[in-house]
Amino acid sequence: MERPSLENLETPAALVELDRVEANLRRVDDYARQHGLRWRPHTKTHKVPELAALQLRAGASGITVATPHEAEVMATVASDVFLAYPPVGAARLERLLRLPPRVSLSVALDSREALEGLSAAALKAGRRVGVLVELDLGMRRVGVQLPSDAIALARAIGMMEAVEYRGITFYPGHVRSPVGQQGSAVSELSSRLAEFIEHLSGAGLQPQVVSGGSTPTLWRSHEVAGLTEIRPGINIFNDRNTAAVGACTWDECAYSVLSTVVSTAVPGQAVIDAGAKALAKEEGLAPGGGYGALLERPDIVVRSLSEEHGLLDLSSTEWRPRVGDRVRVVPNHVCASVNLHERLWSMRDGTVQGTWAVAGRGWGAP
Amino acid sequence: MERPSLENLETPAALVELDRVEANLRRVDDYARQHGLRWRPHTKTHKVPELAALQLRAGASGITVATPHEAEVMATVASDVFLAYPPVGAARLERLLRLPPRVSLSVALDSREALEGLSAAALKAGRRVGVLVELDLGMRRVGVQLPSDAIALARAIGMMEAVEYRGITFYPGHVRSPVGQQGSAVSELSSRLAEFIEHLSGAGLQPQVVSGGSTPTLWRSHEVAGLTEIRPGINIFNDRNTAAVGACTWDECAYSVLSTVVSTAVPGQAVIDAGAKALAKEEGLAPGGGYGALLERPDIVVRSLSEEHGLLDLSSTEWRPRVGDRVRVVPNHVCASVNLHERLWSMRDGTVQGTWAVAGRGWGAP
Repeated sequence: MERPSLENLETPAALVELDRVEANLRRVDDYARQHGLRWRPHTKTHKVPELAALQLRAGASGITVATPHEAEVMATVASDVFLAYPPVGAARLERLLRLPPRVSLSVALDSREALEGLSAAALKAGRRVGVLVELDLGMRRVGVQLPSDAIALARAIGMMEAVEYRGITFYPGHVRSPVGQQGSAVSELSSRLAEFIEHLSGAGLQPQVVSGGSTPTLWRSHEVAGLTEIRPGINIFNDRNTAAVGACTWDECAYSVLSTVVSTAVPGQAVIDAGAKALAKEEGLAPGGGYGALLERPDIVVRSLSEEHGLLDLSSTEWRPRVGDRVRVVPNHVCASVNLHERLWSMRDGTVQGTWAVAGRGWGAP
Repeated sequence: MERPSLENLETPAALVELDRVEANLRRVDDYARQHGLRWRPHTKTHKVPELAALQLRAGASGITVATPHEAEVMATVASDVFLAYPPVGAARLERLLRLPPRVSLSVALDSREALEGLSAAALKAGRRVGVLVELDLGMRRVGVQLPSDAIALARAIGMMEAVEYRGITFYPGHVRSPVGQQGSAVSELSSRLAEFIEHLSGAGLQPQVVSGGSTPTLWRSHEVAGLTEIRPGINIFNDRNTAAVGACTWDECAYSVLSTVVSTAVPGQAVIDAGAKALAKEEGLAPGGGYGALLERPDIVVRSLSEEHGLLDLSSTEWRPRVGDRVRVVPNHVCASVNLHERLWSMRDGTVQGTWAVAGRGWGAP
């Protein structure tokens, strides 16, 4: 095969700029060191064990996963894995507990049912699993509502076999305002968290680990009192939404989808071969709307997506690409786009360096 | 491994009811026969060659694909493949033209650039490719705008080597109103199409093939004058949007995602392990909004999706599922959901019959 390049790669193709990835990882490691926080990146963003290895070499203290299959894949390079998701159901639990014994495993959960299932399965598998009690600090997705619920669950963990209370966890995914305007949301988080910590400590259940954080709130994590660990995911690549809230600059976006213009027949637009099955239909936080923007022309927006078609809005530009031209699109939400690709191409100085399988996609072999 | 069942399958799992699939295929074949139409199902919905084979056995005259990789996969079972997408770029063209020579191949395109690339590549590959001129009949995505453009492109096809003018094609994806209210949209389609056919015929370019249709407009295809072929995709499985517009009943939905309740900590909702990475975030046409509804309780809606979390809205029901309970979700748009799964489980009478790899996902090995 011809050496792959930006000119001859089959499109759509998911590209990763290595220089930018390395700089993004240095930046989070510097921040974490400066504030005495551990960082445990969420690998659901890339699902690539080689990139998890890069994060660990850059200073990460362990990794986070969302599914047992991601845990399987990441266990090939990581010795400390946190499943930030309640492992419910026999098949999920069995897969999770088949991880190599050398892997230190912890999970998040918010119910007695999930805890009982985990304890029984861990006992059967002959391994010990750390548990963080999941708190709802305003996201309203999962997590116990009251300090008394957290105390009851932490006590239950202490009374069950093969599980161990390690602390508390939360995800502030509801905070999506610009970084400069997050002050009140972050202080609200902080005071709700303080209330949980105070009650737990008062009950003799002081959390050893207080794990939280997202990419949008990443750079204000030090303002959350009591936090010991951050779990940014997107930050390795960044994306259009992260740039829109000011948690990265456009030049820090390391991921884009190379695509080809396939039609210009309808006036005012150009159609590219990156559609919803390459970019993902994810809500945009950028003022221009749409589902992504061009890396080299961030004012040109992907206005709508069909499965294999992306429509570039040319209504406010004189630029007129021709059929066959190639463009690179930064999607709104990188995690959803990566999940649509079987491989990522790594790039440096405009040339393809290699390829990684997105090994953590899906739910694994039955 | 234990025999997989609805009780022990690892979730999320994509399930396909075989009885419903067979009935859905019989229904479209009966309709097509009754109206003298050929049907060439769009296999982008399932991406499974075994299901394409089932469609061909049920009476389909060929199959439709969206990508060269789908063509590769479907060529293992089909001898007549239509790529309803302009093949632009050397890598795409090479992949497409490496299809086994026994496969009769045709493509849609709307530009001179796409035509020239195809002709040169086909000549080099030593094969003949049929071309349908793509028309824009109101979708405003791709397709030539005017009869004069269609004539110019059809003439250009006639003058180039290794390509052959076969007719015209369009996709009425903009018609998403309820079937009973499609009368004026369909007659508008029909009159725009008639204008193209008249001009082409007047120029000695009468189209042999007039290919169109979608699943929402499927049952009104016979009202489109001049149509020779329909290309429904979704109709093999159906989905919540198809039921919402009345192009199927709820009992004709053959696809659902089996999932497990993992959290009920936040009042008024239950969280399932089918999120955007299992169901897909696709706009809903049903009045209840959301991203899907429960197969057995269509009034219960998946109100929002994170990557691995689906939030069931329980605000208007007394039903309270428990952590560990299992539910089946019919997604808004089945094609986007299937594309997120590496395999589908086939079901009959409540038991798992087997599994198919979703072999046409992605863009194939480089």
